[in-house]
Amino acid sequence: IVNTGDDFEHLGLQISPDLDTVCYMLAGIHNPETGWGRADETFQSFDQLELLGGPTWFRLGDRDLATHLERTRRLQAGDTLSQVTADFCQAWGIAPTVLPMSNHSIPTIVLTDQGELAFQEYFVHQQCRPAVTGFRFEGIQQASPAPGVIEAIIEADCVVICPSNPWVSIDPILHLPGILQSLEGKSVVGVSPIIGGQALKGPAAKMYTELGISPSAIAVADHYGDLLAGFVLDDVDKNLTKPLTMKCLITDTIMKEESDRLRLGEEVLSFAREL
Amino acid sequence: IVNTGDDFEHLGLQISPDLDTVCYMLAGIHNPETGWGRADETFQSFDQLELLGGPTWFRLGDRDLATHLERTRRLQAGDTLSQVTADFCQAWGIAPTVLPMSNHSIPTIVLTDQGELAFQEYFVHQQCRPAVTGFRFEGIQQASPAPGVIEAIIEADCVVICPSNPWVSIDPILHLPGILQSLEGKSVVGVSPIIGGQALKGPAAKMYTELGISPSAIAVADHYGDLLAGFVLDDVDKNLTKPLTMKCLITDTIMKEESDRLRLGEEVLSFAREL
Repeated sequence: IVNTGDDFEHLGLQISPDLDTVCYMLAGIHNPETGWGRADETFQSFDQLELLGGPTWFRLGDRDLATHLERTRRLQAGDTLSQVTADFCQAWGIAPTVLPMSNHSIPTIVLTDQGELAFQEYFVHQQCRPAVTGFRFEGIQQASPAPGVIEAIIEADCVVICPSNPWVSIDPILHLPGILQSLEGKSVVGVSPIIGGQALKGPAAKMYTELGISPSAIAVADHYGDLLAGFVLDDVDKNLTKPLTMKCLITDTIMKEESDRLRLGEEVLSFAREL
Repeated sequence: IVNTGDDFEHLGLQISPDLDTVCYMLAGIHNPETGWGRADETFQSFDQLELLGGPTWFRLGDRDLATHLERTRRLQAGDTLSQVTADFCQAWGIAPTVLPMSNHSIPTIVLTDQGELAFQEYFVHQQCRPAVTGFRFEGIQQASPAPGVIEAIIEADCVVICPSNPWVSIDPILHLPGILQSLEGKSVVGVSPIIGGQALKGPAAKMYTELGISPSAIAVADHYGDLLAGFVLDDVDKNLTKPLTMKCLITDTIMKEESDRLRLGEEVLSFAREL
C-alpha cells in the first residue's frame, strides 16, 4: 500500500513518484544510484526541454516518461490509478500486489517558514531547504482508500510499516478514513527509518528537528504509538535512552543490496508473526 | 503562416504536427527520411510505452517529446501558441518568422465513408484508408488569425501558397475569417503539390479522386481560382490540357536537397515579384 500524497501534475503529466519508485524497485528496473527513476536511463527529452527553457528541476528520463504518458492517458480516459497500477505491475512482471493508497487526489502540503508548499516544490525544487512547521493532506477527509486496501489489511496476518518517512510517506496512508480502524487488533510492526539519529535518505530527521522533536528511533516509535505491536530498530540504536512499550527487534536494518532486503524482510515477518 | 488544423491532444500532450515539421525543417533538425520528427532521434520512451500497452500509432521520439511537453506546459500556464512558437523558433535558431495560423483550436474533421474522423485518426492511425467525402474546420467561424498573421500578409510584397495539401493544410488557413480579404489585390502565387497527377507525399491526389476531381496541377489551380495571380507547375505538367487564367511558371518543383529548396524558393519569389 503506497503513498500517493506526493502525486502531482507536471508538464501535463500525472506523476506518482512513490508508486513508481516502489514498482521500479520490485521490477528490478530501478536506478540504485539515484533512488528514483530507472536503470539504464537516457535523458534525450529533458536535454531538449532544457534547450527550450522548460522546467528541468523534476528530472524525467526517456523510459520513465512512458510511465507518466500512459498513466496520464488512461486516467484521462477514465481509468482509476488502481487499474493503471495493476496493469503496469503486470507489464513489468511484478508478482506482489502493489496498491495506491487511494484513487482520490490527496496532495500533501508542507507547511514551512516560506509558507505552504506543494510537496514536490518543497522536496525536489527547493530540496527540503524551508523549515517545516507541519503538514496538511488536502481533501483526505473526503477521500477513501483505493479498492483492495482495507481488504488487504483485514486479510493480512501482519502489517509492516516500512522504514519510510513517517510524516509524509506513512501518515498520509494512516490518516485515510478507515485505515486505523482496519488496523485495530492487527499485528502491526514499524521499522525505524531513523538510524543513529539520521535518516539514510530524505528529510525525515530534518523534519523531526524542525518540529521540535529530537530525531531518533524512539521518536519514530512514539510517532506511531499504540498502533504498533512491535518495532524494529537498527543495531546502532540498541542502547535505548527510554523504554518502549512495544516489543522490539534489534537488527541490521540498513539495506544496501538485494540480499539485505531479503534478510531484513524475512526477519521482520518472523518477528511480526511471533507477536 | 502554418496550418494548425492538424493539432490535437494525445497522451495529455498538445501536439502541433505541421508547426513542428516546418520548424524542424527550418532549424535543420528534421528527419529527411520520415518527413516528420527529428534527426538523430531515439525512441526509448515509446518502446516502454509499447510494453505498457499504450497507443504507439502516433510515434513520438524522445527529443520530439520535449517539444510537446514544453508546449503543453506553457499553454496550460496561459501562454498562447504564438508566444510558444516564437520562443521555440528562437531556441532553435530559426531566422524566418513562423506563425501559427490561429491561437484558437480549429480541429480539421475529415468526412469519410467511415463517418467523421479527427484528422490524425484519419491521417496517421487509419493511414488515409477511408474514402474522403469532405472536410470540416470545427469552430473556424468563431476563430481568428493569430497575432501577426493579417499584418504579415498586408506587409508582404507577395504571398506564396506552398506545395502543401490544398484541402487539409492550406484551406484551413484560407477559410479563417479575414484571410481572403487580406489577400485581395496581393500578388499571390500557388505552387502545385500535384505533379504528373500524383502527390509527392500525403493523400492530396487520393482526396481529389475521392471527391470526384481528377488529380492534376490544373485541379489545384482551379481549387485556388481567382485568388492566384500566378501558378507554379512542374516541368512534367508543361503540356496543359486546359488553359489557365493566371500566369504560370513551369519549372522543376521537386525538392530533394537543400539546394533544390533554395533554387525553387528564389524562382518562385522572382516570378511573384514580376507579376
